[in-house]
Amino acid sequence: MAKNFTTRKQDYAKWYNELVIKADLAENSAVRGCMVIKPYGYGIWENMQHALDKMFKDTGHSNAYFPIFIPKSFFSKEASHVEGFAKECAVVTHYRLKESDDKKGIVVDEDARLEEELIVRPTSETIIWDTYRNWIQSYRDLPLLINQWANVVRWEMRTRLFLRTTEFLWQEGHTAHATKAEALEETARMLDVYTTFAEDFMALPVWKGRKSESERFAGAEDTYCIEALMQDGKSLQAGTSHFLGQNFAKAFDVKFLDKQNKQQYVWASSWGVSTRLMGALIMAHSDDNGLVLPPKLAPEQVVIVPIYKNDDDFERVNEKALEIKKQLQDKGIRVKYDDRDTNKPGWKFAEYEFKGVPVRIAIGPKDLDKGTVEVARRDTLEKSFYQATDLANKIEHLLDNIQQNLYNKALDFREEHTHKADTWEEFKERIKNNSGFVLAHWDGTPETEEKIKQETKATIRLIPFEGYDEPGQCVFSGKPSKGRVVFAKAY
Amino acid sequence: MAKNFTTRKQDYAKWYNELVIKADLAENSAVRGCMVIKPYGYGIWENMQHALDKMFKDTGHSNAYFPIFIPKSFFSKEASHVEGFAKECAVVTHYRLKESDDKKGIVVDEDARLEEELIVRPTSETIIWDTYRNWIQSYRDLPLLINQWANVVRWEMRTRLFLRTTEFLWQEGHTAHATKAEALEETARMLDVYTTFAEDFMALPVWKGRKSESERFAGAEDTYCIEALMQDGKSLQAGTSHFLGQNFAKAFDVKFLDKQNKQQYVWASSWGVSTRLMGALIMAHSDDNGLVLPPKLAPEQVVIVPIYKNDDDFERVNEKALEIKKQLQDKGIRVKYDDRDTNKPGWKFAEYEFKGVPVRIAIGPKDLDKGTVEVARRDTLEKSFYQATDLANKIEHLLDNIQQNLYNKALDFREEHTHKADTWEEFKERIKNNSGFVLAHWDGTPETEEKIKQETKATIRLIPFEGYDEPGQCVFSGKPSKGRVVFAKAY
Repeated sequence: MAKNFTTRKQDYAKWYNELVIKADLAENSAVRGCMVIKPYGYGIWENMQHALDKMFKDTGHSNAYFPIFIPKSFFSKEASHVEGFAKECAVVTHYRLKESDDKKGIVVDEDARLEEELIVRPTSETIIWDTYRNWIQSYRDLPLLINQWANVVRWEMRTRLFLRTTEFLWQEGHTAHATKAEALEETARMLDVYTTFAEDFMALPVWKGRKSESERFAGAEDTYCIEALMQDGKSLQAGTSHFLGQNFAKAFDVKFLDKQNKQQYVWASSWGVSTRLMGALIMAHSDDNGLVLPPKLAPEQVVIVPIYKNDDDFERVNEKALEIKKQLQDKGIRVKYDDRDTNKPGWKFAEYEFKGVPVRIAIGPKDLDKGTVEVARRDTLEKSFYQATDLANKIEHLLDNIQQNLYNKALDFREEHTHKADTWEEFKERIKNNSGFVLAHWDGTPETEEKIKQETKATIRLIPFEGYDEPGQCVFSGKPSKGRVVFAKAY
Repeated sequence: MAKNFTTRKQDYAKWYNELVIKADLAENSAVRGCMVIKPYGYGIWENMQHALDKMFKDTGHSNAYFPIFIPKSFFSKEASHVEGFAKECAVVTHYRLKESDDKKGIVVDEDARLEEELIVRPTSETIIWDTYRNWIQSYRDLPLLINQWANVVRWEMRTRLFLRTTEFLWQEGHTAHATKAEALEETARMLDVYTTFAEDFMALPVWKGRKSESERFAGAEDTYCIEALMQDGKSLQAGTSHFLGQNFAKAFDVKFLDKQNKQQYVWASSWGVSTRLMGALIMAHSDDNGLVLPPKLAPEQVVIVPIYKNDDDFERVNEKALEIKKQLQDKGIRVKYDDRDTNKPGWKFAEYEFKGVPVRIAIGPKDLDKGTVEVARRDTLEKSFYQATDLANKIEHLLDNIQQNLYNKALDFREEHTHKADTWEEFKERIKNNSGFVLAHWDGTPETEEKIKQETKATIRLIPFEGYDEPGQCVFSGKPSKGRVVFAKAY
């Protein structure tokens, strides 16, 4: 598998694309910018969904489903929202095709033009807040804590598998609250959920903070985010949680009677993560031998490969392998037993290494005699022999260990690639060398932010919530700064 | 809740619509024909998805995801498919909006017209078989067993919540096989999966069989289906599994090298169920007091309502209620404890009865003294007192009992509403009276089928796989018939 595979040093972007394709995660489709998520990639996404969905429900949210189409006029109702989203979107104008006059194909039936065009949702605030108007009358109807798993479409000009695609899969939470404080609390709570998910499941350390005004979600009063560092020194936004104030309540006239019997506008939050996280997961941990997956999200955590030269060998090995498979499954470990005789063990080793299966167990006749199995871990590529007794417990422990090791490795990498810069020269040098996160003072103006971006391509990834609020001087303008912010080039 | 609620006898269609709305299952959205699935309704759908997904995986299938858009030209490639689907569909023609010249709104940007229009998928055979061409080279790549959970759009003119909506949610399985026999086996296997799901989870007895040619899926060589009887005597198609022959393989040039090193076209099946099943579930079991849900699909299987007049009472009752809640949860039972003090017990009783929660447990101070709880079952509306000891086992048993009772009731209803008709007068009378399924001889011609439909509105729901193949005379034409087929009016 790993033959003809570009290394990260050779060409990081090419390495990523090849990895996504060759590891059977996703591929481009016949429709420009839209991807096909293949079963192996989708298996990882299902594990992500499962973990996130549980966390959403544990924090009191329910799932629901809203229409894929949004009437065009809805976008005009929230001024900054239309600015951010309505421009690059798929527009449905007709509802029928017909046979062409020459009977050689089908054409759009001009008699079936819609009175008002429909937009394929790029995000659902507008259609959802239009619906909430009828659901919310009194403070008793609040809070309303709803999440939707859905596909969305944003007409991207330059697309990359998982990272930026015209259609992508995501979840979008949309909550309604009686007070500003509650909505802010929810915004922070869901950022915490995303942080826990990134760290505990994706083995990905993240920065937490708020976006600068220019990077805010279109329609939000404040955007909180988590940012993770990729191996090429670029940052990737791995989740956002927005405090929407009363913007959408006002745009869609959603009011409630409070306990004092007074009409008030509702306060809102929205938050989302998408299949983009697949890109983050791949880029954060994988290496020049292929994919590396954290055990908690790997479709298969363990693969068992039998080694044999003849039918007698196979019979003995097979029996032991099935026994081990059952022991692992009883522990709740996701295990695949590859007993295909169409491929040699060496081919299988390469295949599962490339696909990032965290643990490989090989069993041959010699192992049976010695009461051992060979265990290879994907993260370090180390092999060792384990006594086969009490194997399920040992493997469970090993999987925990791999999960933790991937996190630690990513954290070490981030620490090594986070620097303070106090002069403009130093700042430019760091950014030019793709050396990761740069903590620098900023004067707080969009003008300076824009100039820094133009000169270096670095953007303010976030303003940390805490720990960096000592005053200083802007690295670019020299003007007073309230604290350091996190700069990086970004995906 | 049940006040001003139409009864089934008064107006079955109105009863259904009111039930869907008042039980918080779904509602119409601002977009014509598209529904909003509310949290309570979506909770049922999630339970359906979970059960089906497990059955798909247990039969060797993996999930994947394909684009929502299909290039217009793809539809022209399979002749009967375009006939069936391309006519009523949402067409994307542009990819950008812009501010209008008067700056008062946004309009479609005519500079952003697509070279080729995109269709929002009404079903995915075309885009999937276009993809399979690259996935299948050799017999080693087969079978390919893939399922997709997705939204689809069919531009329906007359819509009804869940039963017929412009956008709906579904799963679509698309499999590829080396031989005709294997594809036919898969087609039958998935119909069996749907049958098991309908009977064991939805508590819904179904007829199994094949569609007549005129009712076949557009592009299929054979369509298998299950049909269930609703309480108004109409049939509802609850799942279809199609044998596609080599039609899509030929249309999209999907070939493989067989073991003899010969190029062959691939054989195919596709199969799906949708949120339409929600409509079937609601109509099959519910009554004039509201929703009735089978325990296996109910979002909450048990609700606990505390009865108290003062704080002292509440404290004692609350303690016991929490204890019971935990016992039930430990058994894996989905339980809600409604300790809100904003509503009286009587209001709560009516609410949960209307929403079809299978079991209600009420606990008051008198119960504590006697060591009992009051248990009400939704299916029969019976109330009884249970000794509180070993309650979790008793409730588990009761839930099984309710599940079985709903199935038996539906089966009895169907038996009472299935009749043979041997004369045309008898046939017309049965159909006119909405008396359910009519088993009658048919001469096998589309012409007769069409005439029967025009005269009576009854269609051939299916041709049974077995048990009805004694020869006879067509009930309409008097011509020879190979066996009885199942007629009914249908949703």
